[in-house]
Amino acid sequence: MPLNRYKLEWKVGYTSDPSILPDKWVNASVPGAVQLDWASAEGWPHFWQDGDVGRYAWMEKVYWVYETTLPRLEELDGKRLFFVSGGVDYRFLVRVGDRTVHGQEGMFRRVELDLTDVAKGGETLEVVVFPIPDSGLGEGRIEASHSVKPAVSYGWDFHPRLVPTGIWRETFLELRSAQHIKELEFDYVVEDDFSVVKLDISVELSCLASGVFEWSLVDSEGEVVDGETVNLDQQSIVDGACEVHDPDLWWPRGYGDQSMYFLAVSLHGENGELLDTKRRRIGFRSCRLVMNEGAWEESPEMPKSRSVAAMTLEVNGKRIFVKGSNWVAPDVFPGVVGEDAYRPLLEKAASCHFNLLRCWGGSAVGKPSFFEQCDRLGLMVWQDFPLACNCYSESPEFLDTLGQEAAAIVKQLKGHPCVVIWCGGNELFNSWSGMTDQSKAIRLLNKKCYELDPDTPFLPTSPIMGVGHGGYLFRDQLGKECFEVFQTARNSAYVEFGIPGPASVEKLRSLIPEDQLFPPRSEGVWRQRHGFGAWECDEGSWLCMDTVERYFGRPESIEELVVWGQLMQAEGLKGLYEEARRQKPYCSMAINWCFNEPWPAAANNSIISWPCEPKPALRAVRQSCRPTLASARVKRFSWKAGDLFEAELWMLHDGPNSVKGDRVEAYLRFGDDESFVLGWYFDALEEGENRVGPVLRFRVPEIEEQTFKLILRVEGRPDWNSEYDFCFLARAN
Amino acid sequence: MPLNRYKLEWKVGYTSDPSILPDKWVNASVPGAVQLDWASAEGWPHFWQDGDVGRYAWMEKVYWVYETTLPRLEELDGKRLFFVSGGVDYRFLVRVGDRTVHGQEGMFRRVELDLTDVAKGGETLEVVVFPIPDSGLGEGRIEASHSVKPAVSYGWDFHPRLVPTGIWRETFLELRSAQHIKELEFDYVVEDDFSVVKLDISVELSCLASGVFEWSLVDSEGEVVDGETVNLDQQSIVDGACEVHDPDLWWPRGYGDQSMYFLAVSLHGENGELLDTKRRRIGFRSCRLVMNEGAWEESPEMPKSRSVAAMTLEVNGKRIFVKGSNWVAPDVFPGVVGEDAYRPLLEKAASCHFNLLRCWGGSAVGKPSFFEQCDRLGLMVWQDFPLACNCYSESPEFLDTLGQEAAAIVKQLKGHPCVVIWCGGNELFNSWSGMTDQSKAIRLLNKKCYELDPDTPFLPTSPIMGVGHGGYLFRDQLGKECFEVFQTARNSAYVEFGIPGPASVEKLRSLIPEDQLFPPRSEGVWRQRHGFGAWECDEGSWLCMDTVERYFGRPESIEELVVWGQLMQAEGLKGLYEEARRQKPYCSMAINWCFNEPWPAAANNSIISWPCEPKPALRAVRQSCRPTLASARVKRFSWKAGDLFEAELWMLHDGPNSVKGDRVEAYLRFGDDESFVLGWYFDALEEGENRVGPVLRFRVPEIEEQTFKLILRVEGRPDWNSEYDFCFLARAN
Repeated sequence: MPLNRYKLEWKVGYTSDPSILPDKWVNASVPGAVQLDWASAEGWPHFWQDGDVGRYAWMEKVYWVYETTLPRLEELDGKRLFFVSGGVDYRFLVRVGDRTVHGQEGMFRRVELDLTDVAKGGETLEVVVFPIPDSGLGEGRIEASHSVKPAVSYGWDFHPRLVPTGIWRETFLELRSAQHIKELEFDYVVEDDFSVVKLDISVELSCLASGVFEWSLVDSEGEVVDGETVNLDQQSIVDGACEVHDPDLWWPRGYGDQSMYFLAVSLHGENGELLDTKRRRIGFRSCRLVMNEGAWEESPEMPKSRSVAAMTLEVNGKRIFVKGSNWVAPDVFPGVVGEDAYRPLLEKAASCHFNLLRCWGGSAVGKPSFFEQCDRLGLMVWQDFPLACNCYSESPEFLDTLGQEAAAIVKQLKGHPCVVIWCGGNELFNSWSGMTDQSKAIRLLNKKCYELDPDTPFLPTSPIMGVGHGGYLFRDQLGKECFEVFQTARNSAYVEFGIPGPASVEKLRSLIPEDQLFPPRSEGVWRQRHGFGAWECDEGSWLCMDTVERYFGRPESIEELVVWGQLMQAEGLKGLYEEARRQKPYCSMAINWCFNEPWPAAANNSIISWPCEPKPALRAVRQSCRPTLASARVKRFSWKAGDLFEAELWMLHDGPNSVKGDRVEAYLRFGDDESFVLGWYFDALEEGENRVGPVLRFRVPEIEEQTFKLILRVEGRPDWNSEYDFCFLARAN
Repeated sequence: MPLNRYKLEWKVGYTSDPSILPDKWVNASVPGAVQLDWASAEGWPHFWQDGDVGRYAWMEKVYWVYETTLPRLEELDGKRLFFVSGGVDYRFLVRVGDRTVHGQEGMFRRVELDLTDVAKGGETLEVVVFPIPDSGLGEGRIEASHSVKPAVSYGWDFHPRLVPTGIWRETFLELRSAQHIKELEFDYVVEDDFSVVKLDISVELSCLASGVFEWSLVDSEGEVVDGETVNLDQQSIVDGACEVHDPDLWWPRGYGDQSMYFLAVSLHGENGELLDTKRRRIGFRSCRLVMNEGAWEESPEMPKSRSVAAMTLEVNGKRIFVKGSNWVAPDVFPGVVGEDAYRPLLEKAASCHFNLLRCWGGSAVGKPSFFEQCDRLGLMVWQDFPLACNCYSESPEFLDTLGQEAAAIVKQLKGHPCVVIWCGGNELFNSWSGMTDQSKAIRLLNKKCYELDPDTPFLPTSPIMGVGHGGYLFRDQLGKECFEVFQTARNSAYVEFGIPGPASVEKLRSLIPEDQLFPPRSEGVWRQRHGFGAWECDEGSWLCMDTVERYFGRPESIEELVVWGQLMQAEGLKGLYEEARRQKPYCSMAINWCFNEPWPAAANNSIISWPCEPKPALRAVRQSCRPTLASARVKRFSWKAGDLFEAELWMLHDGPNSVKGDRVEAYLRFGDDESFVLGWYFDALEEGENRVGPVLRFRVPEIEEQTFKLILRVEGRPDWNSEYDFCFLARAN
């Protein structure tokens, strides 16, 4: 905490009438959520272990009052007292004593209130939070359709109905000089040949200021690149500009360094005294969405429609095959999420050779430390605005809030080089949402992004034309396996695809009473934890007992169920990531649904259980996303004795390097017998080049085991080896 | 000409250096184009009769200087002298004496220059027009890719390479009071139940003004609806607002009246003297693009993409099936086009039961009288911005020009109720253009339209997802007839589809020397006039000799060729319009390519020859676009003796009314024999309801003639009768 900041001690209570104070107060943790404070005071179990989250329902309908007492500060000495909050969720007032000094709808805009003239110390400061937003149109996510409030909180197929509310971002008092830096903004352009970055700096001061303003741009080694000292002449705006020659560009991981610069600005008074200072990290990169290779050549018969949307990400002039995952809220309560929660998750994402996370629009936009980590790790971010699966309002009030919230989000994040795509929100142009290109919310977001960050691509929503979302099952409702579905699909990008898998046995035991653990029942805790009836399209989701049974027979223990379920998730995701990579360059992205989860689910499409426990699928995905690997395209998962097993061999390769040719050897292991089937010499692979090889065929023998393996070994490059498990069906199916 | 306006007499000449005056001057017609002035002075033939338009080529490379002498005006008496031009094409300077007072790139922005302080009378006033814009990237339309200059002028499959330049809009001097009305803007919202229109008026005055400002809104009967008198208090902005209860809405033709209001504003000085006045016609209507019926229900397998774009036009809450045509520049030189040219063309469009014209982005945006006529006739306008078939620049300079030009276009036209769709331009998201959703030009246009006219739909380009452009032939390169193509297509809107037809024999004789007239040759005048090699996809276009011959044998005279060619255009277009209507409501628009043409073509997709001579296809289209008609879906055009002729009977119906049921009788006429084949009673048709009837079958007899007819008669409603001609193939084909 800087010296000029004062932490506040808060209490919180509820009331049905904001003009009447609560009867009962409890200690409040800020940032946090009222639900957590109340549960803690009541001694309720942690919500993630709670079999009855319904007990939180009433909290949505009341007003919550946070109260603190303003400290009696020493003589202000000409300084100004500011109340600063990074965000209050969702609609709220701020009162000092009896006086309402601020009202706001929207949780993503920072609050900065100059209290100097209304508070001398000793007054109460209250933040009155209104009942959660509710469109009144129905139950569930549609309640969020008139607000910029993450829709996931209203219940989703992996999220309970539990709608956080309260002060969710860092909140404090701050003493500032009367002359201080109100806003520091910058824009930059990377020249087409990447030899020069042109940086423009714009600073807004709190008043018509005199004195001296200084700025400097410093590279990652502490060398000053450029800077300027400006004698102020009663001005409230200061501009600066510089050119960075031979800039150290920021690259996504796998393509180069994650170089950053620092921009430091300081404001001095007329006597040279330091009045204020700000420091921002900046990374320089260019990014565009360009047409997928081959997409312009698709020439449908007349009448002709348009070509598919451009979905190939080009960073610093380099086309990048996107490997990544959908990031969802890492907790039901975003207020308690911080760097400690982000760091291990993001490091696991990096370990998977991912280069991008799609921050899904159902969830809240992350906190600054999320983006700092992504900058550091070279994890690009596709940031949805917080809209998902609704037909969002066209009312002037909603559009006004959306415009302000969006502007705040873009301004906060645009300095982060990791943010390479803005997107209006999730699945808005589909029947279950009902928005179209004409929807004002989308047109407004396009406008805001164009004004504030025109050089970062903007997507109106996802999916757009040519892009695929789904499927989400190993075996779909039509009886098609995921392998078949994706081997016959032709999309420019797969930005949601999932295979569900159960949590570990240990995690399940922590959630589910022993007497309900096995066999799983479709009601009760298993259902509450998304094992059954989670997804409207499939009653058995996400445990998918029928599918497991179809391949492996009825499991005899929870352990067996988990092993088979996790194996199918792992093998399914291997098949899908590698198939998407095989479809490169027409296909440009492989982003599974989803990476993490907001609370512990019994089964889910995530490859990590809450809070950060990888399922076996994570290791599988890590294998399939290596820059270079031997890979096999196999049509299906299950085989019987006598079947002619077929696998098309491939070398998959991406990243900025070429690699030498080598020899792949393919083996099949049935029980303890490993047979060499085929050897394939492949020549050097150019940058980003895949290579298709021969098809191996082998008659499946009768075996005892329920699985067998295909093993690909690359001579001298064991790090390129791959293994695949298949199901051996003892009986005719 | 109002009393305070002064017409100017101009001369024009060219120079290679704008600082050196031309050696030779000729009289200039303003508005017009330098080419027309020079040709007239040289005694060249009219360009539209000219076999050598190449003689104009050098004019593109030089500077053109328009010069006039400023009149010595009486004592200005405190008034200001303005130079006003509606538009100069394309980049230009304005000089008074030696002094450059204005520079501009862009032909759609009005020029208003206060010359009071630089001119006392007697000075020369010069408008220096730069060489035509040229991107330098190649020849043809690509030259226009860095400018907001209509691309058609650079050569198209129906337009010669002839690029107009010069003063193309009304241009004059005007005396204004120092206090005058600089800008009058308004916005309105039609309430959801159409019972109230809320009108906001905003006026910018030329300076901080005192005195009195008055405004009034008057309905079409001269009744004052509302108004206000404002005492000015040193202000330069005046706002007004009113509510119109039970408003007379403006309706597209066929759906109601084209009611208009007048907004009159006046500015008076402190002594009550009238200083300035303005008057604007306003029509009130709401319009939206909503999802086509059935389009949300289309559920592709996973991976799922988005739904198609919303393309059903809803005006004042009523879904309207769009029947219309593509409007192209009615002349090579937009400077000479005015109300006299528009009126007969637009009245023909109205006579076809069209309710919309798509003003194609290859051409210049029309002049005010075009939109006034469309308002009056109830012809809706889909207005493309002037971009077509190029990958438009991303340079800041281009985007700056585009932004200013687009804003000017929107502000000029948004009061016209007829303008119901803004569109970024023609075929920009196709391979031959290469733009994508990410293109800054498109994002900028979306932003400008959202800011200035948010309640009028915006399309980024056409076609968009689900919409079809093409085909343009009776029989395509794959050998498919247009009937088959469209009966198997499934598009949400057909917004370009064409069948070429030759001009009349009389017109051909006026263009083509007698010795070249028949048989047509693929070079020379026939080619220059688009009879051959016009369209890169088809060497024989637009005369399509092979296709005519395939059905009717080799024609023996120009008359025979024209009869058959025009018959095929007429029958083809009947089939296409009626098929699009049968596909309602999934299909929402039928807009053929194209209505008119900019100079006389020997053959073209247009249904009108330049300047305003309908081909037989126009009458055919008029038949097929009647609100109610008996219609037949027939799979093909040509039949042989012994074939089983089949026709599916339909009643097509649109518009806001229901109609009574009746009896359709179908006859086939072979030579002089007319056979009654089938009678069909149909029940009442609800508003907008089509009805499919029985399929008639009839064995085709041997006949002498080359055509036979299907005739549908509706008892008591001869205005619903329809006739179709088919080709009788005497020989096996």
